[in-house]
Amino acid sequence: MRVNGTPHRTVWLDDESGVVKIIDQRKLPFAFEIEELRSVDDLATAIRDMHVRGAGCIGATAGFGMALAAREAAVQVDFPTALQASAELLTATRPTAVNLRWAVDRQLEAMAAVDSIDEKVEVATRVARDIADEDAQWCRRIGEHGLTLVREIAAGKAEGEAVNILTHCNAGWLAFVDYGSATAPIYAAHADGIPVHVWVDETRPRNQGARLTAWELGQEGVPHTVIADNVGGHLMQRGLVDLVITGTDRTTFTGDVANKIGTYLKALAAHDNGVPFYVALPSSTFDWEMEDGVREIPIEQRGGEEVSHLAGYEETAGAEVEVRLTPESSPTANYAFDVTPARLISGLITERGICRASREGVSELFPERFQGTP
Amino acid sequence: MRVNGTPHRTVWLDDESGVVKIIDQRKLPFAFEIEELRSVDDLATAIRDMHVRGAGCIGATAGFGMALAAREAAVQVDFPTALQASAELLTATRPTAVNLRWAVDRQLEAMAAVDSIDEKVEVATRVARDIADEDAQWCRRIGEHGLTLVREIAAGKAEGEAVNILTHCNAGWLAFVDYGSATAPIYAAHADGIPVHVWVDETRPRNQGARLTAWELGQEGVPHTVIADNVGGHLMQRGLVDLVITGTDRTTFTGDVANKIGTYLKALAAHDNGVPFYVALPSSTFDWEMEDGVREIPIEQRGGEEVSHLAGYEETAGAEVEVRLTPESSPTANYAFDVTPARLISGLITERGICRASREGVSELFPERFQGTP
Repeated sequence: MRVNGTPHRTVWLDDESGVVKIIDQRKLPFAFEIEELRSVDDLATAIRDMHVRGAGCIGATAGFGMALAAREAAVQVDFPTALQASAELLTATRPTAVNLRWAVDRQLEAMAAVDSIDEKVEVATRVARDIADEDAQWCRRIGEHGLTLVREIAAGKAEGEAVNILTHCNAGWLAFVDYGSATAPIYAAHADGIPVHVWVDETRPRNQGARLTAWELGQEGVPHTVIADNVGGHLMQRGLVDLVITGTDRTTFTGDVANKIGTYLKALAAHDNGVPFYVALPSSTFDWEMEDGVREIPIEQRGGEEVSHLAGYEETAGAEVEVRLTPESSPTANYAFDVTPARLISGLITERGICRASREGVSELFPERFQGTP
Repeated sequence: MRVNGTPHRTVWLDDESGVVKIIDQRKLPFAFEIEELRSVDDLATAIRDMHVRGAGCIGATAGFGMALAAREAAVQVDFPTALQASAELLTATRPTAVNLRWAVDRQLEAMAAVDSIDEKVEVATRVARDIADEDAQWCRRIGEHGLTLVREIAAGKAEGEAVNILTHCNAGWLAFVDYGSATAPIYAAHADGIPVHVWVDETRPRNQGARLTAWELGQEGVPHTVIADNVGGHLMQRGLVDLVITGTDRTTFTGDVANKIGTYLKALAAHDNGVPFYVALPSSTFDWEMEDGVREIPIEQRGGEEVSHLAGYEETAGAEVEVRLTPESSPTANYAFDVTPARLISGLITERGICRASREGVSELFPERFQGTP
């Protein structure tokens, strides 16, 4: 999507220099900086320290990391050992990121299928590009399917009246390679000339909504308003939300959705007010083993300092500054995700189409995953 | 309640100096400062600029303001005109604060009932103290009634296992003269030796939970943990909340509750998980005219800069610093309250006892208010 009017992806390989480039997401929205990653070490640091984040974006970055790894291994005495060391280094950067391991494994398999080191290096570069292109392609299709929902709502509105969409956290293009998951239908509708307005949940404690989603939408010219996480229920009571779309970090094959903490509260409010609540995801986010999301999905607890402290832009310093929000002696707790039960979800928007959030709904779109199950 | 081990109220009249003293709540939790208010002007500024806030605390401060007004008017040529000017000045400081007008009117009536200026000054001082004492007394009774709920839950727990109570915003003693409304049952249980632990919602955008409730509880030695507003639903799903108690800014006689934005979301989560959700209030908070809270209660929209900017303590500066959280071009919206429908509320804790959140429930406790209605 566009940054200062120019189309961008979150991660790409520069043809001429052979360098991997990323948008350094830690600095957004206060500074837009492209970082050059010249080695596997650089790239591992970028993933570990969250210069990039989001399932699709991490996967694609790891794919490019393995292309760098192949080039580095090619000048070592023992190619397989060097490659394996890089694969392990990358995999260890974010242990719970499913896409990361998947991208690394895909690269190892592809390289194992050819013989010469030159071929391996070539294959790794091609597969890295494929992974990134597929991610973008899947998100684009999510956008096309989700567009039908937005179009239906717009059809019931007066000419020029905006469709109000609420989203939580950042399931935008910054979390993928391009388009995003939750934002893809929004960008598709905007491009299609449908007036949309997005309520952007701030998303405490890390403020991905206020920082990243607001920035993305602004750069693309999509009308939006940032709100505190507390506000969505009131807006729905007053008829000011037509549709909720969020992303997900893991969705069971029965339709339970793990996503950023607070998603469940918005789903409850949507249900209480008859507002459609959709979750957008590439099918790589499904967990085909897990049946009961509320009981089975482990919820990460992060450091309490993300709750007690917050960084923002300080105008006189012209820089980001961290401030403490709580009494020094007050403990804080930081649950990073919650699980929204399938019963509260109107549907799942995938690259193959939209389905109900249930075993039956998911199996209609992905029958091959349910073969042999009763 | 206690501050650094010493019992305090939020506002009081110093006997010797005749000066009104308040805790300057703007500076909490980063600094504890007592401010001396020597004139009606000082006092009007303190209310207007929110050195004090919260219904009960504002009412009591206005009561003391009228005591100062009587003293000031006594040395003017025209006592009634001077008194009336002060009354109008005070009433205009926070136009929507019901307790403020109520306290001023009560003082004017009491002074009108006596003849000499000396008597009026004396009456005003006595009534100011009465207003503050009554506020404290009502909150103490709310605590006694709410204690029965906490005691029941504790009886079902293992020896020493804490009762987990979630609260939103600050309906603590800082919002009243002493004890608070939502916190009164917590302080009563803690004093009674029942182990309690409080989940303190941060309460964006003004962070009254993270700043004030956390500080209050810490000063009183009540175990507590500050959480982002997004977390409560997840905690309830996992059985980590036994009871929710919030305050209210206005409650209809049918039991609909207007309170700080986000309260409705917690009520939905409590309902979905079978967690009791109570609202604590002195009966002065009832609106005896209003029947349908969701449709009728006007919701204040405050400045968007409360969402885009946030102040916190910056360690190296050793002072509060304001930072921007959003892209400069992103609009923000700031709805200050929401309405929780009576159907989601387990009960109302008042100074007269606990009742169901319904016309029938409220009329059983306050029959005199329903005389003549069908």
